[in-house]
Amino acid sequence: MAPTEHDFLALVKQISLLGMNLALIDWDSHTNLPQDGASFRGELSGYVSGQELALRTGSEMKTFIDYFTAHPEALDEKGTQVLRLVKKDFDLNHDIPAADYAAYQQVISDAQQVWEQARVAQDFSLLQPYLEKIVAFKKQFIPYWKRGQATDYDVLLDQFEPGMTVAQLDPIMATLKAGIHQIRHTLATRGTQPRTDFMSRAVPEDVQEQVVRDTVTRLGYDFKKGNLSRSTHPFTVALDRGDARITNRYGIHDFQMSLLGGIHEAGHGLYLQNINPTYDYTPLADAPSMGMHESQSLFNEIFIGRNAAFWQGEYGRFQAATGRLFTDIDEPTFYRGFMATKPTLIRTEADPLTYPLHIVVRYELEKALFNGETTVAELPALWRQKYQEYLGITPANDTEGILQDIHWAGGDLGYFPTYLLGQLYAAQFYHAMSQELPVTDLLASGDYAPITQWRRSHIHWLGASLTPQTLIKQVTGEPLNPRYWLDWMTTTFEKAYQVTE
Amino acid sequence: MAPTEHDFLALVKQISLLGMNLALIDWDSHTNLPQDGASFRGELSGYVSGQELALRTGSEMKTFIDYFTAHPEALDEKGTQVLRLVKKDFDLNHDIPAADYAAYQQVISDAQQVWEQARVAQDFSLLQPYLEKIVAFKKQFIPYWKRGQATDYDVLLDQFEPGMTVAQLDPIMATLKAGIHQIRHTLATRGTQPRTDFMSRAVPEDVQEQVVRDTVTRLGYDFKKGNLSRSTHPFTVALDRGDARITNRYGIHDFQMSLLGGIHEAGHGLYLQNINPTYDYTPLADAPSMGMHESQSLFNEIFIGRNAAFWQGEYGRFQAATGRLFTDIDEPTFYRGFMATKPTLIRTEADPLTYPLHIVVRYELEKALFNGETTVAELPALWRQKYQEYLGITPANDTEGILQDIHWAGGDLGYFPTYLLGQLYAAQFYHAMSQELPVTDLLASGDYAPITQWRRSHIHWLGASLTPQTLIKQVTGEPLNPRYWLDWMTTTFEKAYQVTE
Repeated sequence: MAPTEHDFLALVKQISLLGMNLALIDWDSHTNLPQDGASFRGELSGYVSGQELALRTGSEMKTFIDYFTAHPEALDEKGTQVLRLVKKDFDLNHDIPAADYAAYQQVISDAQQVWEQARVAQDFSLLQPYLEKIVAFKKQFIPYWKRGQATDYDVLLDQFEPGMTVAQLDPIMATLKAGIHQIRHTLATRGTQPRTDFMSRAVPEDVQEQVVRDTVTRLGYDFKKGNLSRSTHPFTVALDRGDARITNRYGIHDFQMSLLGGIHEAGHGLYLQNINPTYDYTPLADAPSMGMHESQSLFNEIFIGRNAAFWQGEYGRFQAATGRLFTDIDEPTFYRGFMATKPTLIRTEADPLTYPLHIVVRYELEKALFNGETTVAELPALWRQKYQEYLGITPANDTEGILQDIHWAGGDLGYFPTYLLGQLYAAQFYHAMSQELPVTDLLASGDYAPITQWRRSHIHWLGASLTPQTLIKQVTGEPLNPRYWLDWMTTTFEKAYQVTE
Repeated sequence: MAPTEHDFLALVKQISLLGMNLALIDWDSHTNLPQDGASFRGELSGYVSGQELALRTGSEMKTFIDYFTAHPEALDEKGTQVLRLVKKDFDLNHDIPAADYAAYQQVISDAQQVWEQARVAQDFSLLQPYLEKIVAFKKQFIPYWKRGQATDYDVLLDQFEPGMTVAQLDPIMATLKAGIHQIRHTLATRGTQPRTDFMSRAVPEDVQEQVVRDTVTRLGYDFKKGNLSRSTHPFTVALDRGDARITNRYGIHDFQMSLLGGIHEAGHGLYLQNINPTYDYTPLADAPSMGMHESQSLFNEIFIGRNAAFWQGEYGRFQAATGRLFTDIDEPTFYRGFMATKPTLIRTEADPLTYPLHIVVRYELEKALFNGETTVAELPALWRQKYQEYLGITPANDTEGILQDIHWAGGDLGYFPTYLLGQLYAAQFYHAMSQELPVTDLLASGDYAPITQWRRSHIHWLGASLTPQTLIKQVTGEPLNPRYWLDWMTTTFEKAYQVTE
């Protein structure tokens, strides 16, 4: 008997349930797992991951994919979209010899532990042999993954941002480097450095958490469909659209980190809470790419959370929530302090203006590595050289340099550009929204509902039914264009730095 | 090829991992699940339960059971113990026709919802038809389950307390009824009613939680192997011995409930944290019965938490933790108030002296139902009559009467006696321990470690490797004997009520 769409979607639902299960296991591991439960948790996690991978790459799935690829007329529109995604996933995971894939998994598991040790020792050379093995495995796997991409690195980019290429990214990176240089030069030569002393005033963690809770609720995050917990690193995990959880951390002397971190995660959560229910239990109930996912968290964090109009409305609430702590600071002074920009060695501590330069460094190193222009051994020197060139600072050791991110040790090569793409997508969405809504007035008045509704209907509702390229074009009328990001940053920072002609 | 113990235990480990998974899902459902996640959670829970049941009752398990039953020499001691438990579970779940079992599952799912409605309406007649169906299903299933038990109700008792029978319980219940009547008569005629007004003083919930956390830590609950969360009803869930979580609830005007509730759950947690690691990933990593599990929570709650010596040591800490709230109450006055006994309509609100009478009522009704002496329709009248006879009070409506517990609607018939057995086991353990350790001195001095260590080595470490009957005999030198419970209650309450000759 011929396979039916109904049976195909039943298998897809099982995979989705196992994904939900893994999301819960992962969330709990970061929020509630007691120390001595770790080894048991590893067994559980491995067992459920194994079940999930077996279904995603097994013979039953292969039968469905082969049949529906040959008989596309047997699927309706939703089935067709699901097929596109599961087929891509199948191809990614299926062709590689199982023994090689297992060996690779072992290397990234070891590498992440060695990464911790290397950080303590401040010594990249400890990690180097592991990273060399990871790169060698990736180079071995790329031919299995390649589907006509122009370069090997394009293959890796495509795994996190489908359709993204070096050909698109190279000019974008060049434009950003020049544009950011220009803005920073303007601020340094014609701007007024904001007062920032009050930014480290002690705000109790419970107060910070309550501010985050209130703010993200007003920004549309629905606590009937999620919750807010504490973890070492903030993250969002979507079990399903009725349970899109966020976590946050609080630093008593760093309310800005906590506040923007919470608003950021709530952007991810908002996305997942508002996907079309038709897509439940399929891979369509997700963002179409990592970059697009980040576009919604960064829209929250930067284009709302660092928007002058937003703080005009919010600052009174913030003052009230923090008692008498900020009564001596008026709103313009507060906002300018909030927007101070300064190059940092650590990517995750960067302000939005300098952040892209951290990504440029990583992008250029990854690209050189996979397109044969450098070796793992040469990376630390290149890292230092590029940080000096682009940001004007040099790490004193590997821990605050090339060892700062776990991504490479975890095998996530080609991932970093999605953080930057998220910013660019967000800026372009913000521009398009501004053509249809009085965004500044809405932000200043605290009436965020029309903004949330716009994002929901134009972006969130669609889930992963469109590719990122199709989505950005459909929503904004043009392909990805870094100009909107540069324009917003120029205007915003020049205003915060009181740049005059 | 003949099945090997290694492969058998690998299957058992898979079942154990799925059980761990279900425990996590259940814990999270009661602590962190947002409202709109409920329907998705139901699907996940059903899927994982289905996987687990399939392994527990599938053909692979049958092959192992058949082979090792015929070739017991092929298993070592641990394998033999595991076989005993999985075979019992297999027999319980396998023989019943699948369609009947599914219909039964549907009835108990419906019945639990109807139970909620019936409670709101204060009307047992709404639940009656569902309970009749549940009883009919049980009567239909009992022949499949029966393994030589003397009465049908014995079959149900055995499912929660292996080996327990009406023949053992009838004289125990009679002894307890008479003994409790005697103690209550003594207190009423020759005792002094304690002052209790201070028992409802407002203690902030966070303070209560901190007191619970400190107290259970001193009583040996290990937060490296568990955690404490809030939920509507307190419970313990053991994912594994490295992750035995407890929850608690807090009532600002009922610190006693919160404190004893937390200590109770920590007793369950303590048990599970201290089972022999050899039993990991097998059903041996659990208590041998529900009653034995309760023996350890009730040991904590009653024989420590209501022990005069314990409060001699703890009251100063309690006073300090609650600020100036109890400075006017001295320790003897506090302890006497803590021990006030009064019949209640609600089982879960009962003090330990009257608690067994609640179980006697339920035991007598269940026994009559299954041994053909009454019908579901007659239960409410019998309930009222027995409450009046044993406790001297009559519920004004079904909600504070026969509808107070969800157990019957959930198909848990034969379960209630385990709560009472837990008390009796605990008293007998306490007596045995007192022969070997200066228990009162240790409690008064706050040096709880020897008590914890005794429980660990005599009871917890053994997991489910012995039957409850073997365990109680091995630890105390004799079979279950309600005399120890009656002796302790007599002495303790007469002292608290200042009974003189």
